[in-house]
Amino acid sequence: MDYRFADRVKMFKSSAIREISEIIAKGNDVISFAGGFPYEPYFPQAELEQAFDKVFASGKSSLQYGMTSGFMPLREKISERVKAKGIQAAPVEVLLTTGSQQSIDLFSRIMLSPGDVVLTENPTFLAAVQAFESYEAKVIGVQSDKDGMDPEDLAKKLKEYKPKFIYVVPTFSNPEGKVWSNERRVALLKLAEEHNTLILEDDPYGELQFNAEETYTPIAAMDTEKKYVIYTSSFSKTVVPSLRVGWVTGPQPIMKVLTQIKEAADLMSSPLNQQALYHLLNDFDLDGHIRMLCQQYHQHMLVMQDYLKKLDSCKWVEPKGGMFIWLEVDENIHATELLTKAVPHGVAFIPGAPFYVDSPRQNTMRLNFTNSNPERIKLGMERLTEAFQQAMK
Amino acid sequence: MDYRFADRVKMFKSSAIREISEIIAKGNDVISFAGGFPYEPYFPQAELEQAFDKVFASGKSSLQYGMTSGFMPLREKISERVKAKGIQAAPVEVLLTTGSQQSIDLFSRIMLSPGDVVLTENPTFLAAVQAFESYEAKVIGVQSDKDGMDPEDLAKKLKEYKPKFIYVVPTFSNPEGKVWSNERRVALLKLAEEHNTLILEDDPYGELQFNAEETYTPIAAMDTEKKYVIYTSSFSKTVVPSLRVGWVTGPQPIMKVLTQIKEAADLMSSPLNQQALYHLLNDFDLDGHIRMLCQQYHQHMLVMQDYLKKLDSCKWVEPKGGMFIWLEVDENIHATELLTKAVPHGVAFIPGAPFYVDSPRQNTMRLNFTNSNPERIKLGMERLTEAFQQAMK
Repeated sequence: MDYRFADRVKMFKSSAIREISEIIAKGNDVISFAGGFPYEPYFPQAELEQAFDKVFASGKSSLQYGMTSGFMPLREKISERVKAKGIQAAPVEVLLTTGSQQSIDLFSRIMLSPGDVVLTENPTFLAAVQAFESYEAKVIGVQSDKDGMDPEDLAKKLKEYKPKFIYVVPTFSNPEGKVWSNERRVALLKLAEEHNTLILEDDPYGELQFNAEETYTPIAAMDTEKKYVIYTSSFSKTVVPSLRVGWVTGPQPIMKVLTQIKEAADLMSSPLNQQALYHLLNDFDLDGHIRMLCQQYHQHMLVMQDYLKKLDSCKWVEPKGGMFIWLEVDENIHATELLTKAVPHGVAFIPGAPFYVDSPRQNTMRLNFTNSNPERIKLGMERLTEAFQQAMK
Repeated sequence: MDYRFADRVKMFKSSAIREISEIIAKGNDVISFAGGFPYEPYFPQAELEQAFDKVFASGKSSLQYGMTSGFMPLREKISERVKAKGIQAAPVEVLLTTGSQQSIDLFSRIMLSPGDVVLTENPTFLAAVQAFESYEAKVIGVQSDKDGMDPEDLAKKLKEYKPKFIYVVPTFSNPEGKVWSNERRVALLKLAEEHNTLILEDDPYGELQFNAEETYTPIAAMDTEKKYVIYTSSFSKTVVPSLRVGWVTGPQPIMKVLTQIKEAADLMSSPLNQQALYHLLNDFDLDGHIRMLCQQYHQHMLVMQDYLKKLDSCKWVEPKGGMFIWLEVDENIHATELLTKAVPHGVAFIPGAPFYVDSPRQNTMRLNFTNSNPERIKLGMERLTEAFQQAMK
């Protein structure tokens, strides 16, 4: 049988990360700095169990179908939480999704026709690019440095490509773990306004901030007329991933169409999980929990960084939050080859090349520091050091 | 700001059911025969709570990210369950989704380019058509009677339109509540084979069968070489809707691409809910529970039907399962107008016209009998009888 797939299927790529996972799976007792997983012992399991108990105690109607846009009391909680970041989003302007990935996908679906352009940083979040390309869009990278997109190159590419939107992860980005400066955020929004172009601000890591004194204003908070920025985040990094609860908010005309397509896509995400999360937010000091996570992950990062300092010809920007260190290694080292040497030593990471939209740099890699505790990070970094030394010979 | 949406957004329709829900919401104490909701008091709440306790007791790793294709032990359970219906699906060929609606949507996404044709019954399931049209596909209705699609008209339309697939709900369909004869199932598969065309078999209601003696073979079970049929179902009607767990299985080349697009769409559905459902299936006699549901819903249906027998010029086929009675009323009655009269009487239903792909029949309506108990059904049918009498004056 010759299956006549849709044209867009030609654009589907097997995820490079999935292929790398297969290499990693072949090793024994591998300490993985590869994925973007949170550390399980920090999960608020008992509190979440209590939250589920409350849902069950509230009666059988809690197990029925819910609204496409999500459980209203949770939308109200999210409205309050984003308000604390300066983002004005009424509860009716918050759409609950099955995580940020679905927010990105649904927004792409309502915006992108074949051939449309999306501007991103380069490198950028791989799975977002997969979603854009699955709608036959063209993804163009904008030149960036440690402070964010270069406004000059952005202006040039806005003019040249007339993109449907600009996709950014400005706070503790994936894969680079960097944070945009305030100036660059202002410049991005100004250019978007001038070119009548939307911004998709993906902020899954924004709350994992190591220094509580600093302030990183979401671009959505700067868009005071609520015209240009679509903002998405989730509870996967701050509560637990397995609930699959994320949200998206933005200009009202966008939210209306997003809700229509959410209905066609899957009717609704789990009302049960949304209710449980509501009770958790009500009864549990999530902000205190997040402060604990920030302190712990900061320690994880510092332990990892101490080993990097001992390595030759490595460059990185110390992360101010999030889950990743982005490493630039000696030009003679090919990160994928290094990975094949590292796995037999019992350690793994993700080579940086797959995150590039174009001109991949083979001597880059992404190290996650949230999935292992400091002891395991030490052991993993010792192993990685050995693999490095072998590669440099 | 002029939002430049994707071309496909032009095809989005506001759901007729949502508009009707607004009419219904304006009434006081309305008994609703409108939605397709199961009856809450039948939900296995205590057992589900125990299942969640087991997941929490299994440790914090149960709260981590899972696999895109879903929790393997649940896929194994589903593989066993569909085998009992004659469908051969290895666990790796089962993809877990956020309900049947997502199965329909993801399959549409990998098959449909703009202008492609999908053949359906007429009337058919509204939300499936929404998904097809959201990919700019053209939906063409095939002539049908109480036994299923007319093979002659189907053959003609397969030849004329070369559709990407044929969408059917052959067992206790939505909206008509009917069941296809075995002959029509065989004829459909044969024609699909002859025209090298796939079948999307949507089977959310198949287990709600009133007469245990009868057998309705899924078309997927007849497709012994696993080439032509994609089969989807869910636990929303047999366990509870709020878990949002469904699944899809079909030919391997299709499953591979479906899993790729599931990853881009939302990474994965809730691993927590999948694990809870696995424990429920392990510890709870779901088949016994479904037998109870079938007996109860059969009684609900008979109570509703008794009132219909007393009404003038009403025609329907007695449902052998599922959730709906499809009613054809006097040609002079316009069901939407009847609804506006019924709501002040305290009863609601869904007019049939929105379910038609073309040539809508205004004197049709869909009555749900699963969302209210027999006492409420009696009261609702008394109110509906009054509204009818008023309309016939």
